[in-house]
Amino acid sequence: MHVEINVKAFLENGHLDELKGILSSIPIPDLAEQVSSLEPEKRKVLFDLMSLDIGKQVFEYLPPPIQKTIIQQLDHKEAAQILNEMAPDDRTAFLEDLPGQVLKNLIRLLSEEERKVTLSLLGYPPQSVGRLMTPDYIMVKENFTIAESLKKIRDIGANSETLDAVYVTDLDGVLLDDLHVGQLLLSNPEKKISDIMDRSFLALRVEQDQEDALKTFSKYHRVALPVIDQNNVMLGIVTVDDMLHVSKEEDTEDIHKIGAVEALDEPYLQIPILKMISKRAGWLVILFLSEMLTATAMGFFEGEIAKAVVLALFVPLIISSGGNSGSQATTLIIRAMALGEVRLKDWWRVMSREIRSGFMLGVILGVIGFLRIFAWTFFTDIYGPHWLLLAVTVGCSLIGVVLWGSLTGSMLPFLLRRLGLDPATSSAPFVATLVDVTGLIIYFSVGYFFLRGTIL
Amino acid sequence: MHVEINVKAFLENGHLDELKGILSSIPIPDLAEQVSSLEPEKRKVLFDLMSLDIGKQVFEYLPPPIQKTIIQQLDHKEAAQILNEMAPDDRTAFLEDLPGQVLKNLIRLLSEEERKVTLSLLGYPPQSVGRLMTPDYIMVKENFTIAESLKKIRDIGANSETLDAVYVTDLDGVLLDDLHVGQLLLSNPEKKISDIMDRSFLALRVEQDQEDALKTFSKYHRVALPVIDQNNVMLGIVTVDDMLHVSKEEDTEDIHKIGAVEALDEPYLQIPILKMISKRAGWLVILFLSEMLTATAMGFFEGEIAKAVVLALFVPLIISSGGNSGSQATTLIIRAMALGEVRLKDWWRVMSREIRSGFMLGVILGVIGFLRIFAWTFFTDIYGPHWLLLAVTVGCSLIGVVLWGSLTGSMLPFLLRRLGLDPATSSAPFVATLVDVTGLIIYFSVGYFFLRGTIL
Repeated sequence: MHVEINVKAFLENGHLDELKGILSSIPIPDLAEQVSSLEPEKRKVLFDLMSLDIGKQVFEYLPPPIQKTIIQQLDHKEAAQILNEMAPDDRTAFLEDLPGQVLKNLIRLLSEEERKVTLSLLGYPPQSVGRLMTPDYIMVKENFTIAESLKKIRDIGANSETLDAVYVTDLDGVLLDDLHVGQLLLSNPEKKISDIMDRSFLALRVEQDQEDALKTFSKYHRVALPVIDQNNVMLGIVTVDDMLHVSKEEDTEDIHKIGAVEALDEPYLQIPILKMISKRAGWLVILFLSEMLTATAMGFFEGEIAKAVVLALFVPLIISSGGNSGSQATTLIIRAMALGEVRLKDWWRVMSREIRSGFMLGVILGVIGFLRIFAWTFFTDIYGPHWLLLAVTVGCSLIGVVLWGSLTGSMLPFLLRRLGLDPATSSAPFVATLVDVTGLIIYFSVGYFFLRGTIL
Repeated sequence: MHVEINVKAFLENGHLDELKGILSSIPIPDLAEQVSSLEPEKRKVLFDLMSLDIGKQVFEYLPPPIQKTIIQQLDHKEAAQILNEMAPDDRTAFLEDLPGQVLKNLIRLLSEEERKVTLSLLGYPPQSVGRLMTPDYIMVKENFTIAESLKKIRDIGANSETLDAVYVTDLDGVLLDDLHVGQLLLSNPEKKISDIMDRSFLALRVEQDQEDALKTFSKYHRVALPVIDQNNVMLGIVTVDDMLHVSKEEDTEDIHKIGAVEALDEPYLQIPILKMISKRAGWLVILFLSEMLTATAMGFFEGEIAKAVVLALFVPLIISSGGNSGSQATTLIIRAMALGEVRLKDWWRVMSREIRSGFMLGVILGVIGFLRIFAWTFFTDIYGPHWLLLAVTVGCSLIGVVLWGSLTGSMLPFLLRRLGLDPATSSAPFVATLVDVTGLIIYFSVGYFFLRGTIL
C-alpha cells in the first residue's frame, strides 16, 4: 500500500529537488499516470528529473501518443537507451503506429541485437499474434536435468515475462512441450526433462488473428501461450495481460461501429479534430443519402398529407419507434455474435424469437398509441370526427413497424456476416434509417386502407 | 496440438463404447464446447460415459445455464462430488445465479469445509472482488527459510491457481508482502523470507467493485492480486483470467445500454423470451412516450404544414440527421469515459471539440441537402416557385440540428455521470429521441424565418 504523491503540485511550486528525491518512492504505474495528465512542457521537466532506470520504466506504461511526444523531446542518446531497454512486445506496440520516416530514425538508434528482434516482430501483419510476442521466456532441451533447468530459470528468470511455464524445444527450435514450473519443483532434480514431458501442449500460430488468440486464452484459462510458425518452431510467447488490451480494443471498435462511427483507433481527446470529423462524416453522409429516400417516400404521399395533415403529425413517432426497436435488435445480435453465443446457423431461431418479441413489443406500443389518441379527443378536436379510425391506423402501423424493425435489425448482422463482412457494421443508426423508409410506406399504406373514403 | 474428435457423430451413431475409450484424449475445454452444443438428452448420455474426474473438469468449463440443466439431471451423489471438486471461485460463479431454494439444496450437498468456503464467498456483494476470490494460493510466514518455502510450494503448489506469486502474512493473517517465485529460486536456501521482503505490495479490497479490479490489473500488468479486508487480513487471490470475463461482461452491459436495452445478463438464445421482452419493453415505452412530444410539436406547426405540405416532406430527413450525429457523439463519449480517456473535468474540452465537429458535419450535410433540392428542381416542380428559399431552410436547419445533436449527445453522458448515474444510460436511441423534438422546433423556426410571407 502506498500514499499518492501529487507530482504536479511539486512541479508547479518549483520544488524540483524535493521531487527528484522522492520520485523513486512512487510506483511506476502511478508515476506514468501522473505523467499522462501533465502538459507536454511539464512532462519534459519531469523526465529530466528521473533517473534513466525510472524513465525507461515509466515510458513503457505511457499510452503511445504520449510516448511519441516524449521521444521527440529527448535527445538521441536518451531515446536510444529507453528504446533498447523496453520489452520487445511493448516496443513493437509503440513503433507500429509511427509514420515511416520517424520509425526508420528510431530503429537506427537500437542496438544491433534489438534492431533484429524489432524488425522481425514488425514483419508480422498488424493484427496478428506475431506483433504481441515477446522473445523473453524460458526454454530448455529434452536432455536437460531438472537441476540444470532450475539453474537456467535462476539465471534468466528475471528477464522472462512469466515463470508459470517453461518450454521444451528440440535442437531446431521445434516446440515439444510446455511444463509448469511447479512440475520442475515437484520432481527429483536428477531426472531428465524428457522424463516429465507429456508432449501435449497448446500453441498459437504466429500469423493468427489476435482475436482468435483472445478466444483461446478465454477458453483455456491460460496465463501465457507459446507462439509457433508453420514448422512448429517456437518464436516467442504471448501473455494474458496483452489480451486485456486486445479485448478492450475489439470492444471499442464494435461500440464505435454500433454508434455509426468508423473506429477512431486513438483516444477521443487526442485524435486530431479533422481526422475525427472525417471518421464521422463518412457514415453520416451515407445515412443522410439513404434517409433522403424518406423525402421521396413522403413526396409520394404528398396528396394524402395535403388531404389529411393530421397524418403527418404522427410520422416522427411511427418511424422512430421502428428505428428504436431495430436498434435494440441489432445491438443484441451483434454482441451475441461477438461473444460466440449466436452463430450463422442460428438465424432461424433468432428470426422466430424476433417475430414473437417484435409482435409483442409492437402490440404494447400500438395500444399506448391508440390510448393516447383516444384520451386526447376529450381535450381537443385536432384529430377530427374520424379520430377512431386514425387511432386504429396509428396502432396497427406501430405493430407493423416495430415488428419490421426487430426483424430487419436482427437479420442484417446475419446478412453481413454471410457476405463476409463485420456484423457490427449494421450500426443502430443504419438500421434505423433502413426502417424509416419502409416505416413510412407501412404507415401510409395502413392509413390508406383504414381512412380511404373518410378523410383520404 | 490435437485432432478434433466429433463427439456428436459418435453419439448419433450409437458408438458409445468407442466414445468412452477416447474421451480422455479430448482436451477438457474442447469437450466442454462440444457438450454445450449438444441437445440436453445427449448431454446426459455423454456425462454418464465420462469418468467422475473428467466430468467434474468438463463441468467447470460449461456456461452456467448449461451447468444448471446438468446438475438437475444428475443424482445427488454425483452432484455433490462435482460441486465439492470445483475451484471455489468457479463454484461461486455457478451458485450465485441460482434461485434460493435450489441454492440451498446444493449447498447442503457440499462437504462441511467446502460449505464454509462457499458461504463466505457468497456473503460478499454480487459485483464485488470477494465473489472472484479463490482461497487456493501459497502463503508463507516471515520466519520461514527459503528452503522451507520451496518445500511448501512443492507440497501445495499443485492446488494453487498460480505459482507466480507467494504471499507473506503474519500470525494474524495480515498481508505483509508478495514475492515472486523467481525471487525464491534466485535466493540462498538458508536465508529467511524476511531477508528478501521489501514490504511493498499491491492488493485489492474484498468489497471493491470488480470493474476497479479490472482497472488495477490493466494498469499494473499483474497475473494475480491478493485480496484483503479492512484490517489488511489476506482472504484470497484473484487471477487475471477472471478479468477477461469481467471485461467482456462490462462491455456487454455498455453495448446493450447504448442500444437501449437493459443488460440481458443471459445469452440471447437462452434468456426466456418474456424476460427478454420485458428488458426491451421498458426502454421502448420510455422512448415512445418521449417521442410523443414530436406529435405535440408537429401539432403546434399544423397550420404551417397545411399551408406548405412540402415542409413536411423533409421532417424525417432533418430529425434523423440530428439523431444520427447525436448517436455518434454519445457513443464516442460513453466509450471514452469507460476507457478512462475522458473524465468529468474534461467536459469543456469535449464541448469545444463537439461545437467545431458538429458545425462542420452540419455544413457538410447542409450543403448536400441544399444541392439535392437544387438538383431536383430541374426534373420536378414539387418544390414550387420558392424552391431556393426551401433549399436554404433545409440547409440551415441541418447545420443547426446536427450541431445540436452533437452537443446533446456529447454532454448527456457528463450530466448523467455528474448525477452519479451510469453514462452508458445515455443510449443512442435516447439521444435521438431528445434531438427529434428539438430538431422539429429548429426546423420549423428556421422555416418560419425564411418562408414567412412566401409560402407560409
